[in-house]
Amino acid sequence: MSLVVQKFGGSSVADAESIKRVARRIVDTRKAGNQVCVVVSAMGDTTDELHDLAAAVSPAPPQRELDMLLTAGERISAALLSMAIDSLGDSARSFTGSQAGVITDDVHGKARIIDITPGRIREALDANHIVIVAGFQGVSQSTKEITTLGRGASDTTAVALAAALGADVCEIYTDVDGIFTADPRIVPTARKIDRISNEEMQELAASGAKILMLRCVEYARRFGVPIHVRSSFSHHEGTWVVDNESARNQQGEEGVEDPIIAGVAHDRGDAKVTIVGVKDSPGVAAKIFQTIAAAQINIDMIVQNISALDTGLTDVSFTCPMSDGPRAVEVLQAAKESIGYDQLQYDDQVGKLSLVGSGMRSHPGVSATLFQALADNGINIEMISTSEIRVSVVTKDDQLDDAVRAVHTAFGLDDADGQAVVYGGTGR
Amino acid sequence: MSLVVQKFGGSSVADAESIKRVARRIVDTRKAGNQVCVVVSAMGDTTDELHDLAAAVSPAPPQRELDMLLTAGERISAALLSMAIDSLGDSARSFTGSQAGVITDDVHGKARIIDITPGRIREALDANHIVIVAGFQGVSQSTKEITTLGRGASDTTAVALAAALGADVCEIYTDVDGIFTADPRIVPTARKIDRISNEEMQELAASGAKILMLRCVEYARRFGVPIHVRSSFSHHEGTWVVDNESARNQQGEEGVEDPIIAGVAHDRGDAKVTIVGVKDSPGVAAKIFQTIAAAQINIDMIVQNISALDTGLTDVSFTCPMSDGPRAVEVLQAAKESIGYDQLQYDDQVGKLSLVGSGMRSHPGVSATLFQALADNGINIEMISTSEIRVSVVTKDDQLDDAVRAVHTAFGLDDADGQAVVYGGTGR
Repeated sequence: MSLVVQKFGGSSVADAESIKRVARRIVDTRKAGNQVCVVVSAMGDTTDELHDLAAAVSPAPPQRELDMLLTAGERISAALLSMAIDSLGDSARSFTGSQAGVITDDVHGKARIIDITPGRIREALDANHIVIVAGFQGVSQSTKEITTLGRGASDTTAVALAAALGADVCEIYTDVDGIFTADPRIVPTARKIDRISNEEMQELAASGAKILMLRCVEYARRFGVPIHVRSSFSHHEGTWVVDNESARNQQGEEGVEDPIIAGVAHDRGDAKVTIVGVKDSPGVAAKIFQTIAAAQINIDMIVQNISALDTGLTDVSFTCPMSDGPRAVEVLQAAKESIGYDQLQYDDQVGKLSLVGSGMRSHPGVSATLFQALADNGINIEMISTSEIRVSVVTKDDQLDDAVRAVHTAFGLDDADGQAVVYGGTGR
Repeated sequence: MSLVVQKFGGSSVADAESIKRVARRIVDTRKAGNQVCVVVSAMGDTTDELHDLAAAVSPAPPQRELDMLLTAGERISAALLSMAIDSLGDSARSFTGSQAGVITDDVHGKARIIDITPGRIREALDANHIVIVAGFQGVSQSTKEITTLGRGASDTTAVALAAALGADVCEIYTDVDGIFTADPRIVPTARKIDRISNEEMQELAASGAKILMLRCVEYARRFGVPIHVRSSFSHHEGTWVVDNESARNQQGEEGVEDPIIAGVAHDRGDAKVTIVGVKDSPGVAAKIFQTIAAAQINIDMIVQNISALDTGLTDVSFTCPMSDGPRAVEVLQAAKESIGYDQLQYDDQVGKLSLVGSGMRSHPGVSATLFQALADNGINIEMISTSEIRVSVVTKDDQLDDAVRAVHTAFGLDDADGQAVVYGGTGR
């Protein structure tokens, strides 16, 4: 008997009808001879509504209380889903994150899972119940307080539970058919990916692909949990996110050569800060990024120009989340004397395109093809950064969509028959 | 420093504005130099809305899952109230029933509190936080499952916590000024009671007075917790529910003679079942009420007529909750042969009036005065039952209001200046 972990997001359980539909799907999986453990998000807009209520009573609600409040959302959907399964004649038990043994650190609002002790879950599964776990929440190991894992972290709950239970697969249900070679709302010819390595998925998620949370993919990779991303509206196979070995084997069996490129991700969530006229001497960069780090701002890309020979001055640019941009400027201005620079430039009209594929390791020339495709379409590159299996470029925001389409075509990712795929996602 | 437990019901926290108002009241109590532990119900209609959701996914939701669902309501109001207090510059911590150490038996939907282990509450109070506890809920000692104590049981949570913490008073906030000598919507001249013994309050609650739950009063009496029932809309003194000794002392100090009667309660929630033509021999009554008990139906009053000399047959009448009436008839019909009777009569158009007062012990003639008052007003008595400090009569439903007014006047309970009191309650 297989053990399947299934995760359903808020849009899959938005109302009573949806909950009943999901319940039927879960019961089908159980009837097919599997043990089933389900992780569920809060219904539809519940989390937003609870945030609104919080805002109505307090301008800055304490994070501990916010966690207490928000976790009610998943408790409600988990209990309702369990009832709906019961009314289909099967037997289900719902559990809060705390009851399910989701042990976290004590950082309210964005706690990290540090352990899973699924004793009660295992017991309920062994007693032939379907188990429903409230996603997104846990209990702090040190303070015993209720914590949340941050928005969208029900995926992580599901993968962590799958790892702890030794599940055969973690199915992430969503409103699209799987993971695509690019966002189909920008690239209508994007293809659904049948199988992708978790290494590539990790890069795509880190580069702005919204369909899976980065932390969820990291967790799956670390613990070797196969993820199956699929639609809750159809029974089609979706996208399997598997380890590198499995990704290659499967493709080998089909007699298809490894694709060089898995997909193109894009991200409009960053801003670019440029520090002009910095002295090109040891310790200056350290000073800049210590200042930024002290303000708890995460940096994405960093570029330093070669210094002008006559002045010994250089420019340093970096990108950071747009929401942190104004604060980055503020702390750099406050440190102007100690760092020493001419001026600051701030630009939040930028976008990032990332090309991801493990085939890059063995195929030189990927960057060249990328830059040529952009050049052919008149798109200027403002920054470049690379990893072993990724090349990212920053462009003007209003050129980003053109850039994604151009690169998608240049790497032969377009769907053979040029058909637009069905895509109902809500990602950016 | 005093320790005050305060309980606010759903109508006191129905929306963000109400929550902020309650928060100010709590902070005032804290600023007056008290430690404050607050028990809160779910916001306004939340519990009903959650019940509706449950009904939408399942015709008969399992009680365990219903408890999981409903307890979200108090979690939400507790967290919001805590946030509102924080925004006033004070510090609060919300706790679920389970976190607060409300240990119950494992009867989902109507669990009984079997212990309170308020370690975390005590710790938070000692750290100078205001504590907010989600009412109505606990955790089962044997199964570790989330339980609910039944509707309206936040009062019981408050009294139980007050007992466990050794609080100086348990303040029950409501939307009326206190407990009245009768329901002011029926008797406009009813007076607010300043002080009542918990023994009398227990009889009133058992007789249909809706303002305090019976179990809450029982708990307060058993553990000697003084209750102060007061309005959340004013700062007037409400009604103190205290032990017999304190109730007498206070009245003695004021130089007023003990009142014979505390108040008049009424109840339209029962139905009357009469079994006509029962053989008047040993064992028959036992057979009848074993049949009823086996169906889990609680009996209130029982009356057996004297048997007719010529036939040796008698009639037995009893009252039970109206919701159980049809089932009582059903099980009695099924047992007709073994019990042996002529016919069943069922009447749900009845009402019960109860006159309660500890002075009855030392003042004969109370029943006579009561019956005379009813007779003078043309009201027929269908059943009578008494306890040491209570006389109850069953009348026709449509005569009940007149009966209450007549008895209220006959015992001199009308307000001296005949003014109608302000009353905004929602009880029956």
